[in-house]
Amino acid sequence: MSKLGYEDVVKARIRVSERIHKTPIVSSRLLNQWLGHEIFFKAECLQKVGAFKSRGALNAVSAYIEKEGSNPKRVIANSSGNHAQAVAWACSQREIPCVITMPEDTSKVKVAATQSYGAKIVQLPTRSEVDAATKAAAEENGVFWIPPYNHDWVIAGQGTVATESLEQVESIDAIFAPCGGGGLVSGTLIATRHLSPKTKVIGVEPLNANDAFQSRQKGEIVGLSQSPQSLADGARTLSVGSKTFPFIQALDDLTTCSEQRLTYWTQWLSHLLKLRIEPTGALAMGGVVDWLRVQQSRKRVLMIISGGNMDAITSAKVWEKDWLDQSPTLDS
Amino acid sequence: MSKLGYEDVVKARIRVSERIHKTPIVSSRLLNQWLGHEIFFKAECLQKVGAFKSRGALNAVSAYIEKEGSNPKRVIANSSGNHAQAVAWACSQREIPCVITMPEDTSKVKVAATQSYGAKIVQLPTRSEVDAATKAAAEENGVFWIPPYNHDWVIAGQGTVATESLEQVESIDAIFAPCGGGGLVSGTLIATRHLSPKTKVIGVEPLNANDAFQSRQKGEIVGLSQSPQSLADGARTLSVGSKTFPFIQALDDLTTCSEQRLTYWTQWLSHLLKLRIEPTGALAMGGVVDWLRVQQSRKRVLMIISGGNMDAITSAKVWEKDWLDQSPTLDS
Repeated sequence: MSKLGYEDVVKARIRVSERIHKTPIVSSRLLNQWLGHEIFFKAECLQKVGAFKSRGALNAVSAYIEKEGSNPKRVIANSSGNHAQAVAWACSQREIPCVITMPEDTSKVKVAATQSYGAKIVQLPTRSEVDAATKAAAEENGVFWIPPYNHDWVIAGQGTVATESLEQVESIDAIFAPCGGGGLVSGTLIATRHLSPKTKVIGVEPLNANDAFQSRQKGEIVGLSQSPQSLADGARTLSVGSKTFPFIQALDDLTTCSEQRLTYWTQWLSHLLKLRIEPTGALAMGGVVDWLRVQQSRKRVLMIISGGNMDAITSAKVWEKDWLDQSPTLDS
Repeated sequence: MSKLGYEDVVKARIRVSERIHKTPIVSSRLLNQWLGHEIFFKAECLQKVGAFKSRGALNAVSAYIEKEGSNPKRVIANSSGNHAQAVAWACSQREIPCVITMPEDTSKVKVAATQSYGAKIVQLPTRSEVDAATKAAAEENGVFWIPPYNHDWVIAGQGTVATESLEQVESIDAIFAPCGGGGLVSGTLIATRHLSPKTKVIGVEPLNANDAFQSRQKGEIVGLSQSPQSLADGARTLSVGSKTFPFIQALDDLTTCSEQRLTYWTQWLSHLLKLRIEPTGALAMGGVVDWLRVQQSRKRVLMIISGGNMDAITSAKVWEKDWLDQSPTLDS
């Protein structure tokens, strides 16, 4: 396992806490009644930029400045998702020029949101052109490239979700988080092992993008050959990272959730909690019910709702079929 | 104008404040930047039962007990909307038997939500059978029928949204609220005229259900002959009430919002605020931009997001077309 540890999360918390929201823990009386357990939701959809990613990005920028003693000349990131907005926002906080590269087919609403934080957007026709341009730009002296998950400072920043949550709610038997590249589950594991060693830490990924599951089984990083189809676009990464994989291996479990179930839970959690929740943010609920179903006693679990950003097309897909017609059970 | 006044709202606040949420005021930096004004949103979608209606229902039940010196034998209400859940919830708080009448075509998710508060649901085939059964049941001694808006205690309870909001945010130039039967705008007017007499109070109703607009023009209550088509189902009432009409006449303005615009704003406010917002809850935004467009200086306005309850079919209709592609302006 990497040297990255709890102290890095503590340092991250000091760096980010003034500028990020202490997001609320919410719950649904009705859901708890239906499932017979207590489920607490950490509402990171109400975080700056609408996702936990602002934590890792701000920690990375701030740690860089601390280490180098001065601002980077420029920050760059390659993302069309929440990481793009997070890096743009973090740079706006520290007044650093920021360039975000994305493919030309990125939806207008995501481009506009990223631009709104003052970032310069460079759009190129294909994903491989975007990757090549980012790599070339990162070679310039003084440029700081912040990757979406495979970086100690990013992982440590994401770990602050768990440190904050474990202060807000006590005696948690298990914590669930979605797993894409693994930044959030890695940070969650580091924080939770230290603060509450008996608490299980479980990652959940889309069944259609189960590279982390395969990697754990094989004992080495297994990459997907092409971008998987999943409504949970925040977890559609092709592979976990060299820095996150050791933590993913150390999780108490990593389970998968089908598209149907993640859509079901996106509808139900939005309905019950009155929050805008993106499919990636609801995904972990599949793991929650799978785990609760086999427990012998009443449990208290925490689920991280990772974000609330989605475009209209994704929203329409979420609501295509009426899943609110069937109330949740432990088999949902 | 009715004798109902600010003191009734103060009494209501004392009765309800321990059991309802003090909902947050939220805002969007980006929206304020785009529109050039400051808009504060009172998030009553995060209220008990997901709508402001819990305030009026709880005030009515509590005021009845205060006045009569004992619980009603039973409370009844006739509603398939937020009022149904609100009355069921209020009765559960005071441990009073509750019967809610609704048509058989009410969506399962609404029936389940109302039942979850312990109410008995009576479903009858047609709206007129429901109305007749409710009326008959209300004649029994000791039964308290709580109407959705045309009742002093209900109006006074809804007024607590404004009293609370005006403590949370200062120097508001105008308050906007959706208008169905008029309970919320009436309570808002009473509270605001007392606490902040210079603040404009403006109601907004769907263009397709503009009976309040017509009533103000004609100087008498104009009813619609049949249930209007609107996604804003909380504002699809056939007419305002004898108790709310005097307040509706005294509003600074009452404007209308087209289906396209209220869908547009449902998408945008959900997206920017990361809340689940029903179309009735976003409707007033049409009035907000109409008003802001003609102002000569930067204004601070408060908009009441009335609720966040909607079924999957309504959600699908909201997201049918992509409105997030066009960023808001004062012409949106």
